Amino acid sequence: MINGILLDISGVLHEGDKVVAGAAEAVKRLRAAGLAVRFLTNTTRRSRRRLIEDMRALGIEVDPEEVFTPAAVAMGWLSQNGFAPHLLVHPTLREDFSGCSTGGPAAVVVGDAAQGFSYDNMNAAFRALEHGAPFLALARNRVFRDKDGELSLDAGPFVEALEFASGTKARLCGKPSPEFFQASMDSMGCRPDEAAMIGDDAESDVAGALAAGLAMGVLVRTGKYRPGDEGRFTPAPSSVVGDITEAADLILAHRAG
Amino acid sequence: MINGILLDISGVLHEGDKVVAGAAEAVKRLRAAGLAVRFLTNTTRRSRRRLIEDMRALGIEVDPEEVFTPAAVAMGWLSQNGFAPHLLVHPTLREDFSGCSTGGPAAVVVGDAAQGFSYDNMNAAFRALEHGAPFLALARNRVFRDKDGELSLDAGPFVEALEFASGTKARLCGKPSPEFFQASMDSMGCRPDEAAMIGDDAESDVAGALAAGLAMGVLVRTGKYRPGDEGRFTPAPSSVVGDITEAADLILAHRAG
Repeated sequence: MINGILLDISGVLHEGDKVVAGAAEAVKRLRAAGLAVRFLTNTTRRSRRRLIEDMRALGIEVDPEEVFTPAAVAMGWLSQNGFAPHLLVHPTLREDFSGCSTGGPAAVVVGDAAQGFSYDNMNAAFRALEHGAPFLALARNRVFRDKDGELSLDAGPFVEALEFASGTKARLCGKPSPEFFQASMDSMGCRPDEAAMIGDDAESDVAGALAAGLAMGVLVRTGKYRPGDEGRFTPAPSSVVGDITEAADLILAHRAG
Repeated sequence: MINGILLDISGVLHEGDKVVAGAAEAVKRLRAAGLAVRFLTNTTRRSRRRLIEDMRALGIEVDPEEVFTPAAVAMGWLSQNGFAPHLLVHPTLREDFSGCSTGGPAAVVVGDAAQGFSYDNMNAAFRALEHGAPFLALARNRVFRDKDGELSLDAGPFVEALEFASGTKARLCGKPSPEFFQASMDSMGCRPDEAAMIGDDAESDVAGALAAGLAMGVLVRTGKYRPGDEGRFTPAPSSVVGDITEAADLILAHRAG
């Protein structure tokens, strides 16, 4: 019995500036059937405030407590462990760290810094790691589908570069970290075997959720999906469907019967 | 019996702008004892022409045929296989590729591009790989000792980033590629079990040479050497000595008796 749904945002509910047709209605139908819904994103180019504004502008109902971001996980870790962040993140994400301590020892926090991934910024982060700073990665995604329709480099390759250079393994805050999936399920009071993930990333969203023990991992063919993705990662998706509407149909049918 | 010596350049013969004390004399003594000498560098911030000029300015005798660079290996591969280079290399290295074909399909060639490792340049290289371009790495070194005395990111981390993003493994042109060591030994008419490598990089120079079958791999404590490097990589160095002078003493003593 599926009682909770985890939804990726970018590529599932919207593609760039455009809503995926039927997305708002699909979310409504899931809620109307009594399912709890949480939104898990590795998108690290938008603040949490902006994410919620954008989803509402697309007609998708969302309560702020339903949105889980890697930056929030990182903030929790920094404050619990007494570190100030050395940020290598997108400028639009800096506001998510505005409540952080600025004194004390630094921890390197790497997100999708985009043009911020200059050699000098990468080297400064490397040197901080060399001097013993802890290393937090907001995400380890390889690529995302860019505005021009082509794939572009996400945070993952730059996290790998810094790990290779420093010999320090990053603590992953976003998907597919099992802790990230678990925190969102805890907030719904839902066990992994009662939960399903819907995502366009066969690796981070779908294989990640299944590895974290979720009952279902549904891959949609929108967003960054490319033909063959369903065979590239282990565990393989429970199902592959056209879009969020078909994913909702599948889950509601599964729940009904 | 050691009959041929492979020498790293940066960190062994000079540190930044300064010659390592005794380096010119040590090279002369090796030659005077009848040993063949070759210079193998992964330094990809200087053209071959400039390398030779700089070595001569430091008082080190060198014949152009004695210098082996990854760019020369890459050039050979490009012309044999009919590819034009998509270069992500240091501006000072571009002249080494001036003889290349500019038409036809492109192969991505990554060296130590330094400030050229911008997000946009990395993304353009990634997209070329996504479209099927072959991938040549001039080097895979993690770090080098920068002008300010601290370690800085070398080409390796950026090669790793592009491999992770594209799923395409780079063909390594520089050390520790066994082909690179072999080409330099062939030019001396020397078998691996008659050759010794002297380097400051425990991984690329020393473990790489021993893995390629060389009789001796001598680690010097100049250049990028950091305490403990001798225990970090396999195979471990045959010997660890203070500098090129002590390395020459060791090899000449070994040869004498």
